[in-house]
Amino acid sequence: MSLNRRHWIALLATLGLAPAAAGAAGPKGKRQLVHHVFFWLKNPGSAADRDALIAGLGTLRAIPVIRDLRIGVPAATEDRSVVDSSYSVSELMVFDSVADQARYQDHPVHQRFVATCGHLWDRVVVYDSIDV
Amino acid sequence: MSLNRRHWIALLATLGLAPAAAGAAGPKGKRQLVHHVFFWLKNPGSAADRDALIAGLGTLRAIPVIRDLRIGVPAATEDRSVVDSSYSVSELMVFDSVADQARYQDHPVHQRFVATCGHLWDRVVVYDSIDV
Repeated sequence: MSLNRRHWIALLATLGLAPAAAGAAGPKGKRQLVHHVFFWLKNPGSAADRDALIAGLGTLRAIPVIRDLRIGVPAATEDRSVVDSSYSVSELMVFDSVADQARYQDHPVHQRFVATCGHLWDRVVVYDSIDV
Repeated sequence: MSLNRRHWIALLATLGLAPAAAGAAGPKGKRQLVHHVFFWLKNPGSAADRDALIAGLGTLRAIPVIRDLRIGVPAATEDRSVVDSSYSVSELMVFDSVADQARYQDHPVHQRFVATCGHLWDRVVVYDSIDV
C-alpha cells in the first residue's frame, strides 16, 4: 500500500501531529478561494424562475478566472435542524485569489447576469472562504 | 481555436439555447453532492480553538467517501451586505451521492470528530446541494 500526500496528512492529523494548516490547501496545492452563493427566489414555487436562474448562472462559465463552477439545488439529505434547505439555487465557484474574485465581480458577463436575473431573487447570502 | 464541452455549454447558455441542467454536473460528469458547513466558535477570538477545530476537521480526510475536502476561513473579499463573514471556519466536502454523505455522517472518524470538537462551536449551519 502506498500512501499519497492526502493519506499522510490524514494520518498526521489523526495523530495530532499536523500543523493546523496542513493539507488544507486546494487540490492544486495553492490556497484557493471558494465563493458560495445561495439564492432565495421571489417565487420559490416557480420552476420557470428557478430554471431561468440556473440558465443565467450557466452563462457565468464563460468567465475565465473561474476555476470551478457548480450550480446546485437543495439535496435530499437527512432533515436535520442544522441543515438550511430553504434556498432555491446555489452557485459554488473557485478562484485562485481574492483578486480573481474581484475580477469576476466586475466582468461584463457577471454584470449582465445580475442585470438579467436580479429580479428573480428575493435574498442572496454569500460565503467567501479561503483555504487554510 | 478548439471548443471543449465547457465552452460549448457556456456558448449555448449565452445564446439561451441550453437546457436548464446543461453542464451543471460536477467535474467528473456526474451529479455530486456539495456539503458545506459553517462553524461559529463559542470563543471566536481564540486562535487556539480555531486551530483545534481546523486540526479536527483535518482528521476527516481519512474518510474514504469524501471526494474533495476544503477547510477554510473567511476570505478578505470586498465587504458587501450580502457576504456573511461572521463564521470562524468552514468545511466543504464533495460526495458522489446522498448515500455517501449519510455514510460519512455515520463514519466513526466523523463521530469522533464531533465528540472531540463539538464543544468548540456555538452554532453550525449546513448547506447540502446537489449538482443540477
